[in-house]
Amino acid sequence: MARLVMKFGGTSVADIERIGVVARHVKREIDAGHEVAVVVSAMSGRTDQLVAWCREASMLHDAREYDAVIASGEQVTAGLLAIVLEGIGINARSWQGWQLPILTSNVHGSARILDINGAELIKRFRERKEVAVVTGFQGINKETGRITTLGRGGSDTSAVAVAAAIQADRCDIYTDVDGVYTTDPRVVPRAQRLEKVSFEEMLELASLGAKVLQVRSVELGMVHKVRIFVRSSFERPEDIDPHGTPPGTLICDEEDIVEQQVVTGIAFSKDEAQIAVRHVPDKPGIAAAIFGPLADASVNVDMIVQNVSSDGATTDLTFTVPASEYQRSIDVLGKAKSAIGFARLDGATDVAKISVIGIGMRSHAGVAAQAFKALASRNINIRAITTSEIKFSVLIDAAYTELAVRTLHSLYGLDK
Amino acid sequence: MARLVMKFGGTSVADIERIGVVARHVKREIDAGHEVAVVVSAMSGRTDQLVAWCREASMLHDAREYDAVIASGEQVTAGLLAIVLEGIGINARSWQGWQLPILTSNVHGSARILDINGAELIKRFRERKEVAVVTGFQGINKETGRITTLGRGGSDTSAVAVAAAIQADRCDIYTDVDGVYTTDPRVVPRAQRLEKVSFEEMLELASLGAKVLQVRSVELGMVHKVRIFVRSSFERPEDIDPHGTPPGTLICDEEDIVEQQVVTGIAFSKDEAQIAVRHVPDKPGIAAAIFGPLADASVNVDMIVQNVSSDGATTDLTFTVPASEYQRSIDVLGKAKSAIGFARLDGATDVAKISVIGIGMRSHAGVAAQAFKALASRNINIRAITTSEIKFSVLIDAAYTELAVRTLHSLYGLDK
Repeated sequence: MARLVMKFGGTSVADIERIGVVARHVKREIDAGHEVAVVVSAMSGRTDQLVAWCREASMLHDAREYDAVIASGEQVTAGLLAIVLEGIGINARSWQGWQLPILTSNVHGSARILDINGAELIKRFRERKEVAVVTGFQGINKETGRITTLGRGGSDTSAVAVAAAIQADRCDIYTDVDGVYTTDPRVVPRAQRLEKVSFEEMLELASLGAKVLQVRSVELGMVHKVRIFVRSSFERPEDIDPHGTPPGTLICDEEDIVEQQVVTGIAFSKDEAQIAVRHVPDKPGIAAAIFGPLADASVNVDMIVQNVSSDGATTDLTFTVPASEYQRSIDVLGKAKSAIGFARLDGATDVAKISVIGIGMRSHAGVAAQAFKALASRNINIRAITTSEIKFSVLIDAAYTELAVRTLHSLYGLDK
Repeated sequence: MARLVMKFGGTSVADIERIGVVARHVKREIDAGHEVAVVVSAMSGRTDQLVAWCREASMLHDAREYDAVIASGEQVTAGLLAIVLEGIGINARSWQGWQLPILTSNVHGSARILDINGAELIKRFRERKEVAVVTGFQGINKETGRITTLGRGGSDTSAVAVAAAIQADRCDIYTDVDGVYTTDPRVVPRAQRLEKVSFEEMLELASLGAKVLQVRSVELGMVHKVRIFVRSSFERPEDIDPHGTPPGTLICDEEDIVEQQVVTGIAFSKDEAQIAVRHVPDKPGIAAAIFGPLADASVNVDMIVQNVSSDGATTDLTFTVPASEYQRSIDVLGKAKSAIGFARLDGATDVAKISVIGIGMRSHAGVAAQAFKALASRNINIRAITTSEIKFSVLIDAAYTELAVRTLHSLYGLDK
């Protein structure tokens, strides 16, 4: 007997027929003797419709009202799934965010979950064998009593938070892929599914472009030690052996991974832009003069490289920003030109960041050096480098992205 | 300065454009210095969609989950209207049934409102000049914390209940007609709009087929002395003089109606069926033997006529039931045939009930006699009669419905 959270996204609950498939997935676990809480998103397309109405209503809509409107989507799905479950003989009840309650911060539209009391759900698992169907993506602000939402993809976070609250043995995220891969299979057909990946690695993989899971859900899993299992929602419930090990990727604590690879995966992002600030005075405080105004403008700066001064008087400072914030960054720096005292700004938007991730790097030296050598042998120029304990990233010309990813994927033995 | 409740139904909030018209109606009242709570229904067609999903999910759906699903419709409208109001510079916030809270009984799908605390709304009227946008049709059960709904047309009742809770001066029901008429204008083109009608009369008019207002909203208005004003939602907000008297019908206390008519209106219903139980023993307890089983089967019996026995041994007993319950009634009585001891059952479904309503009847004798005479002169046969203090009804062949309504409308001087 285990206690499970099962999370289903919008395409899995797009109509009553698919909600029926979800119900049969739940039945499989109940029949196997497990206790189950289900977390659901809104029916596919429904949130988009509600968002469109809010925008039509007013371009400057009140975030509290926006949340009240769009939170209705998950309420519909939760009620419908409870009805379908009861129709196939399973005790179930829906729980809206405010009913549990799921307490959140007051930042409407991107609230953070603060607390969930799981006692009532556990009581009902035991006394009534009742499945809890919980609305994802939403909660309630304790002080104001208003409905809050967690932002796009927030249902993943809801699922992990509910799992923590009920001390679930596992949080199953049913999604349109059957797990986390060593890299994007569209770029490297020989990419392999990872059986297990640590929270730390998944955080790097998720934030660097593997769009399987919301980053915050992984953070929450790491903090509360919730084992997250990413698996396919396309398998027929009847084809799954409830006592077997289905295909998928388990995101878990580092200690639970016995055979650690040096490199776990290769992530990449083309949504990058590089800015070079040329000939700035080489003196203390210059970094603050450049990055202060950017921080004030809420620009996310990454991959900072300060060249060694050749003349002892001026130097170049380069860094990357998300491509969507490129123009704004140029504008901000242009306004601060006299304060910073640079000669000119150079920029490039046709760049890509390739990241190599692996917990094993901690104990293996020379992992990055192998990459630099392999890329050089392909004549791929490295524009910038950053490293951390379990990953390193290189910035290259975007045209070489696929070649670089395939080269590194082979280099570290990740090909099937 | 007055305090108003404004209620808008589904067609008035069918899309963002129409919600914009509603907002301008609200703005007109705010600009005139009034305090306003708005009660809204779901966008037209939305509730039908949600109900269809519940039915598709399971024919035997849990009423609590059904309520959770369909209550989402009003939540969307309330949020959107609040957004539109703020967009035109009016402070507003939405209130879902559980937020106020609107406490109801536990009968899911047709709950009754038990209590609403209006103090917070009144505080916000005063301190923030804030418009309250309240979801109609729903509330929360205090014991279980589950969302309840009030049944079709329940938003009228919500509006009157909110008006009572905030001691509103008037509850304006915006609808697709501009008031209550002396009879159905499709049958009698010369029907007139009533300026005022008493709660008691409106109850009779509403329950007898004038589908302007939900009956329970009128009952609630009568108990809490809430003046209800039925008016058109089709007038452009800009065409209405906020200080004038717009077209409409005020439903109010009898004392507020200075010039009382003897007859206020003529209602009719073709959804009737008559059943005659022939040759039952003429002895005590026979009515109980017949109506007991019908009551057990929840059949609404109306217009009971027991003929005087001609032979002293047996008699005929006739009564009406709603046409939709006719076959079930025949079945119930068939099963009880030996217990009742009747000879046979005769039935007719092509009958209509014509009702003449007027508070003035209390003090005027012979009002009904005039009708009988007029109908006889038209060769309309009366199959049954019932009377009460402020109305009488006659059952006739359905074919004569329009002729009878027109005849009585003229007879009592209601033609324009």
